Amino acid sequence: MVTNLKGRDFISVMDFGKEELETILEVAKWLKMRNAIGESQDHILKGKVLGMLFASPSTRTRLSFSTGIFQLGGQAQVYSPEELQLSHKESWKDTAEMISRFLSGFAIRLYNLKTQMGTLEYEYGDARKVLRGIAEYASIPVINMLDDKEHPCQIMGDILTMTEKFGGLEGAKKKKIVMSWAYDERAKSAGVPQTMIAAGGILGLNIVLAYPNEPGLYDVDPEYIEFAKNAAAASGGSLTIENDIWKASKDADVIYAKSWARNPDKHESVRDKYKDDWCISHEHFKTAGKGAVYMHCLPARRKFEVTDLLIDDPKISIVNDEAENRLHVQKAIMSLTMGGRL
Amino acid sequence: MVTNLKGRDFISVMDFGKEELETILEVAKWLKMRNAIGESQDHILKGKVLGMLFASPSTRTRLSFSTGIFQLGGQAQVYSPEELQLSHKESWKDTAEMISRFLSGFAIRLYNLKTQMGTLEYEYGDARKVLRGIAEYASIPVINMLDDKEHPCQIMGDILTMTEKFGGLEGAKKKKIVMSWAYDERAKSAGVPQTMIAAGGILGLNIVLAYPNEPGLYDVDPEYIEFAKNAAAASGGSLTIENDIWKASKDADVIYAKSWARNPDKHESVRDKYKDDWCISHEHFKTAGKGAVYMHCLPARRKFEVTDLLIDDPKISIVNDEAENRLHVQKAIMSLTMGGRL
Amino acid sequence: MVTNLKGRDFISVMDFGKEELETILEVAKWLKMRNAIGESQDHILKGKVLGMLFASPSTRTRLSFSTGIFQLGGQAQVYSPEELQLSHKESWKDTAEMISRFLSGFAIRLYNLKTQMGTLEYEYGDARKVLRGIAEYASIPVINMLDDKEHPCQIMGDILTMTEKFGGLEGAKKKKIVMSWAYDERAKSAGVPQTMIAAGGILGLNIVLAYPNEPGLYDVDPEYIEFAKNAAAASGGSLTIENDIWKASKDADVIYAKSWARNPDKHESVRDKYKDDWCISHEHFKTAGKGAVYMHCLPARRKFEVTDLLIDDPKISIVNDEAENRLHVQKAIMSLTMGGRL
Repeated sequence: MVTNLKGRDFISVMDFGKEELETILEVAKWLKMRNAIGESQDHILKGKVLGMLFASPSTRTRLSFSTGIFQLGGQAQVYSPEELQLSHKESWKDTAEMISRFLSGFAIRLYNLKTQMGTLEYEYGDARKVLRGIAEYASIPVINMLDDKEHPCQIMGDILTMTEKFGGLEGAKKKKIVMSWAYDERAKSAGVPQTMIAAGGILGLNIVLAYPNEPGLYDVDPEYIEFAKNAAAASGGSLTIENDIWKASKDADVIYAKSWARNPDKHESVRDKYKDDWCISHEHFKTAGKGAVYMHCLPARRKFEVTDLLIDDPKISIVNDEAENRLHVQKAIMSLTMGGRL
Repeated sequence: MVTNLKGRDFISVMDFGKEELETILEVAKWLKMRNAIGESQDHILKGKVLGMLFASPSTRTRLSFSTGIFQLGGQAQVYSPEELQLSHKESWKDTAEMISRFLSGFAIRLYNLKTQMGTLEYEYGDARKVLRGIAEYASIPVINMLDDKEHPCQIMGDILTMTEKFGGLEGAKKKKIVMSWAYDERAKSAGVPQTMIAAGGILGLNIVLAYPNEPGLYDVDPEYIEFAKNAAAASGGSLTIENDIWKASKDADVIYAKSWARNPDKHESVRDKYKDDWCISHEHFKTAGKGAVYMHCLPARRKFEVTDLLIDDPKISIVNDEAENRLHVQKAIMSLTMGGRL
Repeated sequence: MVTNLKGRDFISVMDFGKEELETILEVAKWLKMRNAIGESQDHILKGKVLGMLFASPSTRTRLSFSTGIFQLGGQAQVYSPEELQLSHKESWKDTAEMISRFLSGFAIRLYNLKTQMGTLEYEYGDARKVLRGIAEYASIPVINMLDDKEHPCQIMGDILTMTEKFGGLEGAKKKKIVMSWAYDERAKSAGVPQTMIAAGGILGLNIVLAYPNEPGLYDVDPEYIEFAKNAAAASGGSLTIENDIWKASKDADVIYAKSWARNPDKHESVRDKYKDDWCISHEHFKTAGKGAVYMHCLPARRKFEVTDLLIDDPKISIVNDEAENRLHVQKAIMSLTMGGRL
């Protein structure tokens, strides 16, 4: 078990090795059990402070991090960019210096500088640059609560959930995991699919990426495809791309569907073309594997990404267990990076 | 003493029996004493988390709940609807599922969906429906911090204050309690008078509801009148309606005055008619009982609901003691519903 | 060592004697050391609650107070005026009564009522009046986190930093401290220079106040000049005014530069006149004393108040150490005023 995560940033799963990600999953499982039997954990990060900067609304992330740091004995501080001097144009560098003096860890949600920070020009990757910039100047761990490239805490919670449902990581490796998405008229982070293929690649999962064949509209960052393929080759996992959701669903053990589009402006022209097929329903589960589950990072756009009947079907939908695991996996990440001994 | 409040929601006083409300008052008194002598209480809700959603500004409620959960060993999380994914139209049901995974209790202030949640159509009772909906789907206690029907934490604090001033609950039952309100040009929750007559009815208080006789403008929800009358009949209390504030004030032991109008649009036409009589002053206390007190839930609209001289008169006005009791009674409610053993 | 600070407000350094300010510096140093070796301090303000009202954005102040009260065992509550009933025109007096019932201490940042509280008419000193008004009616300590006259927590942290760099307070007294500022097109608090000359006067520092000679534009409140001169006469310190930044910089041990203008409307007419000389750079340090340091309360307006090269030069700039000391000195102020035994 590789445990040298003390002081590390948690910005991209690609920064971590297989054994390191496995350690996070193990610690999360242990913290979850310990919580379940009412054993106190407030000595683990006693006296530590987590600052959280939200540049966009959040329910699960905010609640789970706030509760998590408290259960570990620390304090949660929540800010918006408007409340900090960032609103007075204080530089990220100066902000990074400051947080290192007052906090034990800094978590940030920032995925669209244009709408969230009033930046006029914005290109894919700019939010990541801000996170890397803060991390460079900050001496404390920086945790990515969703940027424009990844959503690493979400995916680690998702994989923890798969290990629970499928008999550990070894069981999960034997499953067909379909990560699907389709049209959305809103600009959104591509974080979920990109992190899933990267982390899945590292850990040896078999992932089918399913999306409509519309070049420039739905395809993910080629950097992630390449990383995932190489990682899967090394770990014994696999990455397949499939443009037909019905073929993808066949024998699937997980269907994880989330709307997204690289270029929402093109959405209108293709909307009707994919409307019927890509809204996941019980129909998709007819040909899926025995015991197949529906996953979603939430909030789901009901009737659009998924039918009400499916997402509310407790025999198939595990979205709430999945959400809860955010808490446990994030506690593991905080404990390992903000606490820990060398 | 009926103590089976563990896991219960605290949405309406009408959901509780006489002995249950009495238990809340007893526990509040005990917690207040214990605090006064500096005895630590942070084991009572150690490790528990209270989420608080404020859809409108709040001073007393926010501070008292935040301090209360901290004194009991728990964490306070405060949110606005804009900060949560509610602003992205996440459903109340999905939000309810989520809070149950991350929190130990959820308190909500929501009394006008139209102005607070951007709902176009709003009818009296809709805010209550939201609270009941969350409570239905949440597995943790939901606490009403003011909806469009009731303000139960306020009134429990008010009654605790009366028990302190009048020799316990038995003493308070012998008093004439005038609950008055009159015109306001702003739409406001009818929570205070409605909860007072309901709780007073359950506990056996003698309440005079005083307001101008303008059908459709000032009269409270008939459901509450009916409940209060029936409850008073069972408990030995009484409910009387009086449209002349001077008659109401005569021999009163408490005058509790708060502006409110069911239909603020009609306000203009009656404004001058009630202006002089219904702003409570020392004049009203001339014929009141010996030791009569002035109460108000605050913030008061000075010169409108009450004269400066009266509300600042420490011999008559007990508004600050009343406000402080929010803390103690809410700690009792949290301890009984979020803590507790069966 | 004079230690009778229990229950005192910390609004103006002028309310404190030399030995009292020295006690704050001593306690801050001790708390900082104790923190450095990982000794727990959470018994010092165990169970206490600090309310913080921010009428303007803040990074350092918010983080340092939030972390500070937590490290001492207390709870941090952060509010904006909009979140409290202040937004519904609740009076400061009523607010002061309330905070005394629910909090152990109240910290407030308010320096421009016109922009921050929507007041139409605003005169210099009005924000201070609000603070004094709250303090008059509140029974708990009120702490000034920046008003329109002073920034006392900032300056106490600054002086703590000087004692660290120059061999204690006795060493700092032998140094030439240049407090400079020049034009700004934004209305800002004069708190930093005014508090520096007042506190410096009390503690016996030798301060040169440097600003362009433009009567009515840059000169500070004569009340502070007079106080500082008298205090310096008693303590053995000195206050000199110098209108040439180059003369001021000669043999300086500290150059502390911050833009400010009493009357921003006049800024345009003088902008170009002072642009080159008053932006502090390595040039100013050529004739400064050996080991001279650059200080700033942050956030700095880079390229305007100071060059990037200078503020980022770790051999000269001590702005981050200075910022960190906010934490330690504020913990001392809270411990002494909110905790303490008589």
